[in-house]
Amino acid sequence: MKTYLDCFPCFVDQALRAGRLVTDDEKLIKELIDYVGESFKDISLESSPPETGEYIYGKIREMTGIDDPYKEIKKSNIREALSLYPDLKKMLDKSEDRMLTAIRLAIAGNIIDFAFGKKFNLKQDIERILKQEFAIFHYNEFKENFENVSSVLYIGDNAGESVFDRLLIEELGKPVTYVVRGIPIINDVTMEDAVESGLDQVAELMSSGSTAPGAVLRLCNEEFIEGFEKAEMIISKGQGNYEALSNAEKTVFFLLKAKCKMISKDLGVNQNDIVFYSINTGNQS
Amino acid sequence: MKTYLDCFPCFVDQALRAGRLVTDDEKLIKELIDYVGESFKDISLESSPPETGEYIYGKIREMTGIDDPYKEIKKSNIREALSLYPDLKKMLDKSEDRMLTAIRLAIAGNIIDFAFGKKFNLKQDIERILKQEFAIFHYNEFKENFENVSSVLYIGDNAGESVFDRLLIEELGKPVTYVVRGIPIINDVTMEDAVESGLDQVAELMSSGSTAPGAVLRLCNEEFIEGFEKAEMIISKGQGNYEALSNAEKTVFFLLKAKCKMISKDLGVNQNDIVFYSINTGNQS
Repeated sequence: MKTYLDCFPCFVDQALRAGRLVTDDEKLIKELIDYVGESFKDISLESSPPETGEYIYGKIREMTGIDDPYKEIKKSNIREALSLYPDLKKMLDKSEDRMLTAIRLAIAGNIIDFAFGKKFNLKQDIERILKQEFAIFHYNEFKENFENVSSVLYIGDNAGESVFDRLLIEELGKPVTYVVRGIPIINDVTMEDAVESGLDQVAELMSSGSTAPGAVLRLCNEEFIEGFEKAEMIISKGQGNYEALSNAEKTVFFLLKAKCKMISKDLGVNQNDIVFYSINTGNQS
Repeated sequence: MKTYLDCFPCFVDQALRAGRLVTDDEKLIKELIDYVGESFKDISLESSPPETGEYIYGKIREMTGIDDPYKEIKKSNIREALSLYPDLKKMLDKSEDRMLTAIRLAIAGNIIDFAFGKKFNLKQDIERILKQEFAIFHYNEFKENFENVSSVLYIGDNAGESVFDRLLIEELGKPVTYVVRGIPIINDVTMEDAVESGLDQVAELMSSGSTAPGAVLRLCNEEFIEGFEKAEMIISKGQGNYEALSNAEKTVFFLLKAKCKMISKDLGVNQNDIVFYSINTGNQS
Protein backbone atom coordinates (compact mmCIF):
# COMPACT_ATOMS: atom_id res chain seq x y z
CA MET A 1 0.00 0.00 0.00
CA LYS A 2 1.28 3.44 -0.84
CA THR A 3 1.42 6.32 1.59
CA TYR A 4 -1.67 8.53 1.44
CA LEU A 5 -1.59 12.25 2.18
CA ASP A 6 -3.82 11.45 5.19
CA CYS A 7 -1.00 9.34 6.64
CA PHE A 8 1.07 12.44 7.42
CA PRO A 9 -0.97 13.82 10.34
CA CYS A 10 -1.02 10.24 11.67
CA PHE A 11 2.79 9.96 11.44
CA VAL A 12 3.05 13.01 13.72
CA ASP A 13 0.43 11.58 16.03
CA GLN A 14 2.28 8.26 16.26
CA ALA A 15 5.56 10.03 16.99
CA LEU A 16 3.81 11.99 19.73
CA ARG A 17 2.31 8.92 21.39
CA ALA A 18 5.50 6.87 21.09
CA GLY A 19 7.56 9.79 22.40
CA ARG A 20 5.30 10.14 25.42
CA LEU A 21 5.67 6.47 26.22
CA VAL A 22 9.43 6.79 26.62
CA THR A 23 9.82 10.25 28.10
CA ASP A 24 7.92 13.08 29.71
CA ASP A 25 10.50 15.60 28.56
CA GLU A 26 8.37 17.88 26.39
CA LYS A 27 11.44 19.40 24.69
CA LEU A 28 12.67 15.98 23.62
CA ILE A 29 9.26 15.07 22.22
CA LYS A 30 9.10 18.40 20.38
CA GLU A 31 12.51 17.57 18.89
CA LEU A 32 11.17 14.22 17.74
CA ILE A 33 8.12 15.88 16.17
CA ASP A 34 10.34 18.47 14.48
CA TYR A 35 12.40 15.62 13.07
CA VAL A 36 9.34 13.82 11.75
CA GLY A 37 8.06 17.06 10.19
CA GLU A 38 11.41 17.74 8.60
CA SER A 39 11.35 14.21 7.15
CA PHE A 40 8.06 14.75 5.30
CA LYS A 41 9.88 15.93 2.19
CA ASP A 42 11.84 12.66 2.11
CA ILE A 43 8.74 10.48 2.46
CA SER A 44 7.54 9.51 -0.98
CA LEU A 45 3.88 8.79 -1.59
CA GLU A 46 5.18 5.67 -3.33
CA SER A 47 6.72 4.27 -0.14
CA SER A 48 4.64 2.13 2.21
CA PRO A 49 3.67 3.53 5.64
CA PRO A 50 5.75 1.01 7.67
CA GLU A 51 8.86 2.42 6.00
CA THR A 52 8.02 5.74 7.64
CA GLY A 53 7.30 3.88 10.87
CA GLU A 54 10.85 2.53 10.76
CA TYR A 55 12.11 6.10 10.41
CA ILE A 56 10.07 7.43 13.34
CA TYR A 57 10.72 4.61 15.79
CA GLY A 58 14.38 4.47 14.79
CA LYS A 59 14.70 8.12 15.71
CA ILE A 60 13.01 7.50 19.06
CA ARG A 61 15.55 4.78 19.82
CA GLU A 62 18.37 7.09 18.84
CA MET A 63 17.09 10.04 20.87
CA THR A 64 16.15 8.18 24.02
CA GLY A 65 18.53 5.20 24.02
CA ILE A 66 15.47 3.01 24.76
CA ASP A 67 15.36 0.04 22.40
CA ASP A 68 12.08 -1.53 23.41
CA PRO A 69 9.63 0.91 25.00
CA TYR A 70 6.77 -1.58 24.69
CA LYS A 71 8.65 -4.41 26.42
CA GLU A 72 6.51 -4.51 29.56
CA ILE A 73 3.28 -3.89 27.65
CA LYS A 74 4.11 -6.76 25.32
CA LYS A 75 4.86 -9.12 28.21
CA SER A 76 1.59 -8.19 29.86
CA ASN A 77 -0.39 -8.70 26.63
CA ILE A 78 1.18 -12.11 26.07
CA ARG A 79 0.35 -13.10 29.67
CA GLU A 80 -3.26 -12.00 29.24
CA ALA A 81 -3.59 -13.86 25.94
CA LEU A 82 -2.02 -17.00 27.43
CA SER A 83 -4.49 -16.88 30.30
CA LEU A 84 -7.31 -16.95 27.73
CA TYR A 85 -5.74 -19.75 25.69
CA PRO A 86 -7.54 -22.68 27.42
CA ASP A 87 -10.93 -21.00 27.00
CA LEU A 88 -10.19 -20.19 23.37
CA LYS A 89 -9.32 -23.85 22.81
CA LYS A 90 -12.70 -24.80 24.27
CA MET A 91 -14.39 -22.34 21.93
CA LEU A 92 -12.73 -24.13 19.04
CA ASP A 93 -13.87 -27.51 20.35
CA LYS A 94 -17.46 -26.29 20.40
CA SER A 95 -17.38 -24.57 17.03
CA GLU A 96 -18.95 -25.94 13.84
CA ASP A 97 -16.05 -24.91 11.62
CA ARG A 98 -12.85 -25.08 13.67
CA MET A 99 -10.65 -23.56 10.94
CA LEU A 100 -12.97 -20.59 10.45
CA THR A 101 -13.26 -19.99 14.19
CA ALA A 102 -9.48 -20.15 14.50
CA ILE A 103 -9.23 -17.59 11.69
CA ARG A 104 -11.70 -15.33 13.50
CA LEU A 105 -9.71 -15.68 16.72
CA ALA A 106 -6.49 -14.86 14.89
CA ILE A 107 -8.18 -11.65 13.68
CA ALA A 108 -9.54 -10.94 17.16
CA GLY A 109 -5.95 -11.04 18.43
CA ASN A 110 -5.11 -8.29 15.94
CA ILE A 111 -6.80 -5.72 18.18
CA ILE A 112 -3.69 -5.86 20.44
CA ASP A 113 -2.07 -3.06 18.47
CA PHE A 114 -0.36 0.03 19.83
CA ALA A 115 0.38 1.67 16.49
CA PHE A 116 -3.00 3.37 16.94
CA GLY A 117 -4.31 5.30 19.88
CA LYS A 118 -7.42 3.16 20.30
CA LYS A 119 -7.96 1.25 23.49
CA PHE A 120 -9.16 -2.30 23.44
CA ASN A 121 -10.83 -4.78 25.75
CA LEU A 122 -9.59 -8.18 24.74
CA LYS A 123 -12.47 -10.32 26.05
CA GLN A 124 -15.22 -8.06 24.73
CA ASP A 125 -13.52 -7.65 21.37
CA ILE A 126 -13.13 -11.42 20.97
CA GLU A 127 -16.86 -11.90 21.61
CA ARG A 128 -17.71 -9.26 19.01
CA ILE A 129 -15.30 -10.42 16.33
CA LEU A 130 -16.49 -14.03 16.64
CA LYS A 131 -19.93 -12.83 15.50
CA GLN A 132 -18.86 -10.09 13.09
CA GLU A 133 -19.52 -10.44 9.36
CA PHE A 134 -16.41 -10.39 7.18
CA ALA A 135 -16.23 -7.40 4.80
CA ILE A 136 -13.99 -9.45 2.50
CA PHE A 137 -14.09 -13.22 2.86
CA HIS A 138 -11.77 -15.24 0.63
CA TYR A 139 -12.21 -18.35 2.75
CA ASN A 140 -13.06 -20.64 -0.14
CA GLU A 141 -9.95 -19.56 -2.04
CA PHE A 142 -7.99 -20.19 1.14
CA LYS A 143 -9.37 -23.70 1.60
CA GLU A 144 -8.76 -24.59 -2.05
CA ASN A 145 -5.16 -23.38 -1.84
CA PHE A 146 -4.57 -24.91 1.54
CA GLU A 147 -5.52 -28.41 0.38
CA ASN A 148 -2.69 -28.37 -2.12
CA VAL A 149 0.19 -27.09 -0.01
CA SER A 150 2.56 -28.92 2.26
CA SER A 151 3.63 -25.93 4.38
CA VAL A 152 2.69 -22.36 5.28
CA LEU A 153 4.68 -19.17 5.86
CA TYR A 154 2.86 -17.21 8.57
CA ILE A 155 3.94 -13.58 9.07
CA GLY A 156 3.11 -12.43 12.60
CA ASP A 157 2.16 -8.94 13.64
CA ASN A 158 1.82 -8.05 17.32
CA ALA A 159 2.95 -9.61 20.59
CA GLY A 160 -0.07 -11.08 22.38
CA GLU A 161 -1.81 -11.53 19.05
CA SER A 162 0.92 -14.17 18.64
CA VAL A 163 -0.91 -16.43 21.13
CA PHE A 164 -4.00 -16.25 18.91
CA ASP A 165 -1.81 -17.08 15.93
CA ARG A 166 -0.73 -20.22 17.79
CA LEU A 167 -4.36 -21.40 17.88
CA LEU A 168 -4.69 -21.00 14.12
CA ILE A 169 -1.34 -22.68 13.48
CA GLU A 170 -2.45 -25.65 15.59
CA GLU A 171 -5.60 -25.93 13.46
CA LEU A 172 -3.64 -25.74 10.21
CA GLY A 173 -1.93 -29.00 11.15
CA LYS A 174 0.78 -28.60 8.51
CA PRO A 175 4.37 -27.39 8.96
CA VAL A 176 4.37 -23.65 9.57
CA THR A 177 7.18 -21.13 9.63
CA TYR A 178 6.24 -18.23 11.90
CA VAL A 179 7.92 -14.94 10.99
CA VAL A 180 8.78 -12.25 13.54
CA ARG A 181 10.29 -8.78 13.20
CA GLY A 182 14.05 -8.28 13.18
CA ILE A 183 14.05 -5.85 16.11
CA PRO A 184 11.54 -4.63 18.69
CA ILE A 185 9.32 -2.03 16.99
CA ILE A 186 6.11 -0.75 18.57
CA ASN A 187 4.49 -3.85 20.09
CA ASP A 188 5.31 -6.07 17.13
CA VAL A 189 6.18 -9.68 17.82
CA THR A 190 9.89 -10.50 18.10
CA MET A 191 11.68 -13.84 18.48
CA GLU A 192 11.57 -13.53 22.27
CA ASP A 193 7.85 -12.71 22.23
CA ALA A 194 7.13 -15.65 19.92
CA VAL A 195 8.88 -18.04 22.30
CA GLU A 196 7.00 -16.57 25.28
CA SER A 197 3.78 -17.13 23.33
CA GLY A 198 4.68 -20.81 22.93
CA LEU A 199 5.01 -20.55 19.16
CA ASP A 200 8.31 -22.44 19.19
CA GLN A 201 6.26 -25.51 20.18
CA VAL A 202 4.05 -25.39 17.08
CA ALA A 203 6.12 -23.71 14.36
CA GLU A 204 9.58 -23.06 13.11
CA LEU A 205 10.48 -19.47 14.01
CA MET A 206 12.14 -17.13 11.54
CA SER A 207 13.13 -13.47 11.77
CA SER A 208 12.21 -11.38 8.74
CA GLY A 209 15.02 -9.04 9.73
CA SER A 210 12.59 -6.18 9.16
CA THR A 211 13.30 -3.07 11.19
CA ALA A 212 9.92 -1.64 10.17
CA PRO A 213 6.50 -2.38 11.67
CA GLY A 214 5.66 -4.55 8.66
CA ALA A 215 7.48 -7.02 6.41
CA VAL A 216 8.79 -4.40 3.97
CA LEU A 217 10.76 -6.60 1.59
CA ARG A 218 13.58 -4.14 0.98
CA LEU A 219 14.22 -4.13 4.75
CA CYS A 220 14.06 -7.90 5.20
CA ASN A 221 16.93 -10.37 5.35
CA GLU A 222 17.82 -12.89 2.65
CA GLU A 223 16.53 -15.86 4.59
CA PHE A 224 13.05 -14.36 4.75
CA ILE A 225 13.02 -13.14 1.16
CA GLU A 226 13.97 -16.60 0.00
CA GLY A 227 11.32 -18.15 2.26
CA PHE A 228 8.77 -15.66 0.99
CA GLU A 229 9.55 -16.36 -2.65
CA LYS A 230 9.51 -20.12 -2.22
CA ALA A 231 6.48 -20.26 0.08
CA GLU A 232 3.61 -22.41 -1.11
CA MET A 233 1.14 -20.40 0.96
CA ILE A 234 1.53 -17.14 2.86
CA ILE A 235 -0.65 -15.89 5.69
CA SER A 236 -0.02 -12.26 6.64
CA LYS A 237 -1.36 -10.84 9.86
CA GLY A 238 -2.32 -7.26 10.58
CA GLN A 239 -2.18 -3.83 9.05
CA GLY A 240 1.60 -3.28 8.93
CA ASN A 241 2.16 -6.44 6.89
CA TYR A 242 -0.77 -5.55 4.62
CA GLU A 243 0.75 -2.12 3.99
CA ALA A 244 4.10 -3.75 3.26
CA LEU A 245 2.88 -6.64 1.09
CA SER A 246 -0.40 -5.62 -0.56
CA ASN A 247 1.41 -5.14 -3.86
CA ALA A 248 3.49 -8.32 -3.61
CA GLU A 249 3.52 -10.62 -6.60
CA LYS A 250 2.68 -13.68 -4.55
CA THR A 251 -0.55 -15.18 -3.33
CA VAL A 252 -0.88 -13.75 0.17
CA PHE A 253 -3.84 -14.26 2.52
CA PHE A 254 -4.26 -11.19 4.69
CA LEU A 255 -6.02 -11.53 8.02
CA LEU A 256 -6.70 -8.25 9.74
CA LYS A 257 -9.05 -5.86 11.40
CA ALA A 258 -9.10 -2.61 9.41
CA LYS A 259 -8.49 -0.17 12.23
CA CYS A 260 -6.92 2.62 10.18
CA LYS A 261 -9.04 4.86 7.93
CA MET A 262 -6.64 4.73 5.00
CA ILE A 263 -6.13 0.97 5.08
CA SER A 264 -9.93 0.60 5.11
CA LYS A 265 -10.10 2.87 2.08
CA ASP A 266 -7.33 0.95 0.34
CA LEU A 267 -9.23 -2.30 0.93
CA GLY A 268 -12.58 -0.74 0.03
CA VAL A 269 -14.11 -1.63 3.42
CA ASN A 270 -15.41 0.33 6.40
CA GLN A 271 -13.24 1.17 9.38
CA ASN A 272 -13.32 -1.64 11.98
CA ASP A 273 -14.38 -4.23 9.42
CA ILE A 274 -12.70 -7.64 9.58
CA VAL A 275 -11.02 -8.87 6.47
CA PHE A 276 -9.81 -12.18 5.03
CA TYR A 277 -8.36 -10.99 1.77
CA SER A 278 -6.16 -12.72 -0.76
CA ILE A 279 -4.19 -11.18 -3.58
CA ASN A 280 -3.12 -12.93 -6.75
CA THR A 281 -5.23 -16.04 -6.33
CA GLY A 282 -7.07 -15.30 -9.54
CA ASN A 283 -10.23 -16.02 -7.55
CA GLN A 284 -10.96 -12.68 -5.99
CA SER A 285 -14.57 -11.84 -5.30
CA MET B 1 -3.10 29.84 24.79
CA LYS B 2 0.21 28.22 24.03
CA THR B 3 0.74 25.60 21.37
CA TYR B 4 0.47 22.05 22.70
CA LEU B 5 2.41 19.13 21.25
CA ASP B 6 -0.99 17.70 20.24
CA CYS B 7 -1.51 20.72 17.97
CA PHE B 8 1.14 19.49 15.52
CA PRO B 9 -0.77 16.54 13.99
CA CYS B 10 -3.72 18.92 13.72
CA PHE B 11 -1.64 21.54 11.87
CA VAL B 12 -0.87 18.91 9.23
CA ASP B 13 -4.50 17.85 9.13
CA GLN B 14 -5.63 21.45 8.64
CA ALA B 15 -3.11 21.98 5.86
CA LEU B 16 -4.38 18.82 4.19
CA ARG B 17 -8.03 19.84 4.35
CA ALA B 18 -7.35 23.42 3.29
CA GLY B 19 -5.11 22.23 0.46
CA ARG B 20 -7.80 19.89 -0.80
CA LEU B 21 -10.30 22.71 -0.85
CA VAL B 22 -8.23 24.71 -3.32
CA THR B 23 -6.68 22.02 -5.48
CA ASP B 24 -6.88 18.36 -6.35
CA ASP B 25 -3.24 18.31 -7.39
CA GLU B 26 -1.83 15.75 -4.96
CA LYS B 27 1.76 16.86 -5.61
CA LEU B 28 0.92 20.45 -4.69
CA ILE B 29 -0.78 19.34 -1.48
CA LYS B 30 2.20 17.13 -0.64
CA GLU B 31 4.43 20.18 -1.13
CA LEU B 32 2.22 22.12 1.27
CA ILE B 33 2.40 19.33 3.85
CA ASP B 34 6.18 19.13 3.41
CA TYR B 35 6.35 22.86 4.04
CA VAL B 36 4.24 22.61 7.19
CA GLY B 37 6.39 19.72 8.44
CA GLU B 38 9.55 21.63 7.73
CA SER B 39 8.14 24.57 9.71
CA PHE B 40 7.64 22.53 12.89
CA LYS B 41 11.11 23.43 14.14
CA ASP B 42 10.23 27.13 13.85
CA ILE B 43 6.94 26.80 15.73
CA SER B 44 7.57 27.54 19.37
CA LEU B 45 5.40 25.94 22.03
CA GLU B 46 5.14 29.48 23.39
CA SER B 47 3.40 30.80 20.27
CA SER B 48 -0.38 30.62 19.99
CA PRO B 49 -1.94 28.21 17.46
CA PRO B 50 -3.45 30.94 15.23
CA GLU B 51 0.08 32.17 14.56
CA THR B 52 0.76 28.79 12.98
CA GLY B 53 -2.57 29.05 11.18
CA GLU B 54 -1.35 32.28 9.60
CA TYR B 55 1.75 30.44 8.42
CA ILE B 56 -0.17 27.53 6.90
CA TYR B 57 -2.89 29.51 5.16
CA GLY B 58 -0.39 32.11 3.99
CA LYS B 59 1.56 29.35 2.28
CA ILE B 60 -1.62 28.03 0.65
CA ARG B 61 -2.32 31.50 -0.77
CA GLU B 62 1.24 31.72 -2.04
CA MET B 63 1.24 28.26 -3.60
CA THR B 64 -2.17 28.38 -5.24
CA GLY B 65 -2.70 32.08 -5.87
CA ILE B 66 -6.18 31.69 -4.33
CA ASP B 67 -6.78 34.37 -1.71
CA ASP B 68 -10.14 33.29 -0.38
CA PRO B 69 -10.87 29.57 -0.86
CA TYR B 70 -13.86 29.73 1.51
CA LYS B 71 -15.52 32.65 -0.31
CA GLU B 72 -18.52 30.71 -1.63
CA ILE B 73 -18.87 28.65 1.54
CA LYS B 74 -18.91 31.86 3.60
CA LYS B 75 -21.56 33.45 1.37
CA SER B 76 -23.70 30.35 1.64
CA ASN B 77 -23.36 30.21 5.44
CA ILE B 78 -24.29 33.88 5.74
CA ARG B 79 -27.34 33.32 3.53
CA GLU B 80 -28.45 30.35 5.62
CA ALA B 81 -27.98 32.27 8.86
CA LEU B 82 -29.87 35.29 7.48
CA SER B 83 -32.75 33.02 6.50
CA LEU B 84 -32.95 31.89 10.15
CA TYR B 85 -32.71 35.43 11.51
CA PRO B 86 -36.50 36.13 11.75
CA ASP B 87 -37.11 32.86 13.62
CA LEU B 88 -34.20 33.50 15.96
CA LYS B 89 -35.69 36.93 16.72
CA LYS B 90 -38.97 35.22 17.60
CA MET B 91 -37.07 32.84 19.91
CA LEU B 92 -35.68 35.86 21.70
CA ASP B 93 -39.15 37.40 22.00
CA LYS B 94 -40.42 34.25 23.66
CA SER B 95 -37.45 33.75 26.00
CA GLU B 96 -37.43 34.54 29.72
CA ASP B 97 -33.94 36.06 29.67
CA ARG B 98 -33.39 37.72 26.30
CA MET B 99 -29.72 38.53 26.95
CA LEU B 100 -28.89 34.98 27.98
CA THR B 101 -30.74 33.49 25.00
CA ALA B 102 -28.90 35.91 22.70
CA ILE B 103 -25.61 34.75 24.26
CA ARG B 104 -26.59 31.13 23.69
CA LEU B 105 -27.48 31.89 20.07
CA ALA B 106 -24.14 33.67 19.60
CA ILE B 107 -22.43 30.49 20.81
CA ALA B 108 -24.66 28.34 18.60
CA GLY B 109 -23.41 30.38 15.63
CA ASN B 110 -19.86 29.37 16.57
CA ILE B 111 -20.44 25.90 15.14
CA ILE B 112 -20.04 27.42 11.64
CA ASP B 113 -16.30 26.75 11.71
CA PHE B 114 -14.18 25.20 9.01
CA ALA B 115 -10.91 25.19 10.93
CA PHE B 116 -11.98 21.70 12.05
CA GLY B 117 -13.13 18.78 9.99
CA LYS B 118 -16.43 18.37 11.82
CA LYS B 119 -19.68 18.75 9.97
CA PHE B 120 -22.52 20.70 11.45
CA ASN B 121 -26.26 20.99 11.05
CA LEU B 122 -27.16 24.56 11.91
CA LYS B 123 -30.80 24.08 12.92
CA GLN B 124 -30.19 20.96 15.00
CA ASP B 125 -27.15 22.45 16.69
CA ILE B 126 -29.06 25.63 17.62
CA GLU B 127 -31.79 23.54 19.27
CA ARG B 128 -29.20 21.61 21.24
CA ILE B 129 -27.11 24.56 22.34
CA LEU B 130 -30.19 26.46 23.52
CA LYS B 131 -30.75 23.70 26.08
CA GLN B 132 -27.10 22.83 26.84
CA GLU B 133 -25.62 23.51 30.28
CA PHE B 134 -22.66 25.89 30.31
CA ALA B 135 -19.40 24.28 31.48
CA ILE B 136 -18.16 27.73 32.54
CA PHE B 137 -20.76 30.40 33.14
CA HIS B 138 -19.50 33.86 34.07
CA TYR B 139 -22.84 35.47 33.29
CA ASN B 140 -23.15 37.30 36.60
CA GLU B 141 -19.70 38.85 36.15
CA PHE B 142 -20.75 39.83 32.66
CA LYS B 143 -23.95 41.51 33.81
CA GLU B 144 -22.15 43.38 36.61
CA ASN B 145 -19.51 44.63 34.19
CA PHE B 146 -22.00 45.42 31.47
CA GLU B 147 -24.06 47.72 33.69
CA ASN B 148 -21.08 50.01 34.13
CA VAL B 149 -19.84 50.34 30.58
CA SER B 150 -20.90 52.67 27.82
CA SER B 151 -19.60 50.62 24.89
CA VAL B 152 -18.41 47.17 23.91
CA LEU B 153 -15.63 45.87 21.65
CA TYR B 154 -16.91 42.68 20.04
CA ILE B 155 -14.32 40.49 18.26
CA GLY B 156 -16.01 38.34 15.62
CA ASP B 157 -14.94 34.89 14.55
CA ASN B 158 -16.60 33.17 11.59
CA ALA B 159 -18.73 34.32 8.66
CA GLY B 160 -22.32 33.17 9.19
CA GLU B 161 -21.75 33.15 12.95
CA SER B 162 -21.63 36.90 12.34
CA VAL B 163 -25.44 36.93 11.83
CA PHE B 164 -25.83 35.37 15.28
CA ASP B 165 -23.48 38.02 16.66
CA ARG B 166 -25.85 40.63 15.24
CA LEU B 167 -28.66 39.26 17.43
CA LEU B 168 -26.54 39.60 20.55
CA ILE B 169 -25.36 43.08 19.58
CA GLU B 170 -28.98 44.16 19.14
CA GLU B 171 -29.73 42.88 22.64
CA LEU B 172 -26.75 44.68 24.15
CA GLY B 173 -28.34 48.00 23.16
CA LYS B 174 -25.11 49.95 23.71
CA PRO B 175 -22.61 51.17 21.10
CA VAL B 176 -20.63 48.22 19.80
CA THR B 177 -17.51 48.06 17.65
CA TYR B 178 -17.48 44.78 15.72
CA VAL B 179 -14.00 43.55 14.81
CA VAL B 180 -13.24 41.50 11.70
CA ARG B 181 -10.05 39.87 10.40
CA GLY B 182 -7.64 41.86 8.23
CA ILE B 183 -7.72 39.38 5.34
CA PRO B 184 -9.77 36.32 4.39
CA ILE B 185 -8.47 33.37 6.39
CA ILE B 186 -10.34 30.06 6.62
CA ASN B 187 -14.01 31.05 6.97
CA ASP B 188 -13.31 33.89 9.38
CA VAL B 189 -15.45 37.00 9.13
CA THR B 190 -14.03 39.85 7.02
CA MET B 191 -15.32 43.37 6.47
CA GLU B 192 -17.28 42.25 3.41
CA ASP B 193 -18.83 39.33 5.31
CA ALA B 194 -19.79 41.61 8.20
CA VAL B 195 -21.60 43.96 5.82
CA GLU B 196 -23.38 41.03 4.16
CA SER B 197 -24.45 39.89 7.62
CA GLY B 198 -26.01 43.31 8.25
CA LEU B 199 -23.60 44.15 11.04
CA ASP B 200 -22.95 47.61 9.62
CA GLN B 201 -26.55 48.43 10.59
CA VAL B 202 -26.01 47.65 14.28
CA ALA B 203 -22.32 48.27 14.99
CA GLU B 204 -19.29 50.21 13.94
CA LEU B 205 -17.04 47.88 11.94
CA MET B 206 -13.29 47.70 12.50
CA SER B 207 -10.59 45.50 11.00
CA SER B 208 -8.14 44.03 13.49
CA GLY B 209 -5.68 43.80 10.63
CA SER B 210 -4.94 40.26 11.81
CA THR B 211 -3.73 37.92 9.10
CA ALA B 212 -4.16 34.97 11.49
CA PRO B 213 -7.35 33.06 12.32
CA GLY B 214 -7.53 34.87 15.67
CA ALA B 215 -6.79 38.35 17.02
CA VAL B 216 -3.10 37.71 17.69
CA LEU B 217 -2.05 41.13 19.02
CA ARG B 218 1.39 41.16 17.42
CA LEU B 219 -0.30 40.70 14.02
CA CYS B 220 -3.01 43.35 14.56
CA ASN B 221 -3.01 46.96 13.40
CA GLU B 222 -2.59 49.99 15.64
CA GLU B 223 -6.24 51.00 15.43
CA PHE B 224 -7.34 47.67 16.88
CA ILE B 225 -4.63 47.54 19.53
CA GLU B 226 -5.61 51.00 20.70
CA GLY B 227 -9.29 50.02 20.66
CA PHE B 228 -8.49 46.83 22.55
CA GLU B 229 -6.48 48.65 25.22
CA LYS B 230 -9.08 51.38 25.71
CA ALA B 231 -12.12 49.09 25.56
CA GLU B 232 -14.41 49.18 28.56
CA MET B 233 -15.67 45.69 27.81
CA ILE B 234 -14.49 43.07 25.35
CA ILE B 235 -16.47 40.15 24.00
CA SER B 236 -14.38 37.60 22.11
CA LYS B 237 -16.01 34.96 19.95
CA GLY B 238 -14.72 31.51 19.12
CA GLN B 239 -11.66 29.36 19.53
CA GLY B 240 -9.15 31.32 17.43
CA ASN B 241 -9.68 34.49 19.45
CA TYR B 242 -9.52 32.51 22.69
CA GLU B 243 -6.19 31.01 21.64
CA ALA B 244 -4.92 34.47 20.73
CA LEU B 245 -6.21 36.38 23.77
CA SER B 246 -6.50 33.94 26.68
CA ASN B 247 -3.38 35.44 28.24
CA ALA B 248 -4.33 39.07 27.59
CA GLU B 249 -4.11 41.48 30.50
CA LYS B 250 -7.61 42.81 29.95
CA THR B 251 -11.02 41.67 31.06
CA VAL B 252 -12.25 39.62 28.12
CA PHE B 253 -15.48 37.62 27.96
CA PHE B 254 -15.00 34.57 25.77
CA LEU B 255 -18.03 33.00 24.14
CA LEU B 256 -17.32 29.73 22.43
CA LYS B 257 -18.07 26.12 21.86
CA ALA B 258 -14.98 24.09 22.81
CA LYS B 259 -14.67 22.00 19.66
CA CYS B 260 -10.93 21.33 19.84
CA LYS B 261 -9.49 18.82 22.33
CA MET B 262 -6.61 21.05 23.38
CA ILE B 263 -8.71 24.19 23.88
CA SER B 264 -11.08 22.10 26.01
CA LYS B 265 -8.09 20.96 28.05
CA ASP B 266 -6.79 24.51 28.36
CA LEU B 267 -10.19 25.65 29.65
CA GLY B 268 -10.61 22.59 31.86
CA VAL B 269 -13.87 21.56 30.17
CA ASN B 270 -15.02 18.62 28.07
CA GLN B 271 -14.93 18.66 24.29
CA ASN B 272 -18.13 20.16 22.85
CA ASP B 273 -18.93 22.02 26.06
CA ILE B 274 -20.20 25.58 25.73
CA VAL B 275 -18.32 28.24 27.59
CA PHE B 276 -18.92 31.80 28.79
CA TYR B 277 -15.58 32.53 30.37
CA SER B 278 -14.03 35.74 31.56
CA ILE B 279 -10.42 36.43 32.40
CA ASN B 280 -9.18 39.11 34.77
CA THR B 281 -12.52 40.03 36.28
CA GLY B 282 -11.27 39.02 39.69
CA ASN B 283 -14.53 37.12 40.00
CA GLN B 284 -13.69 33.82 38.41
CA SER B 285 -15.50 30.79 39.65
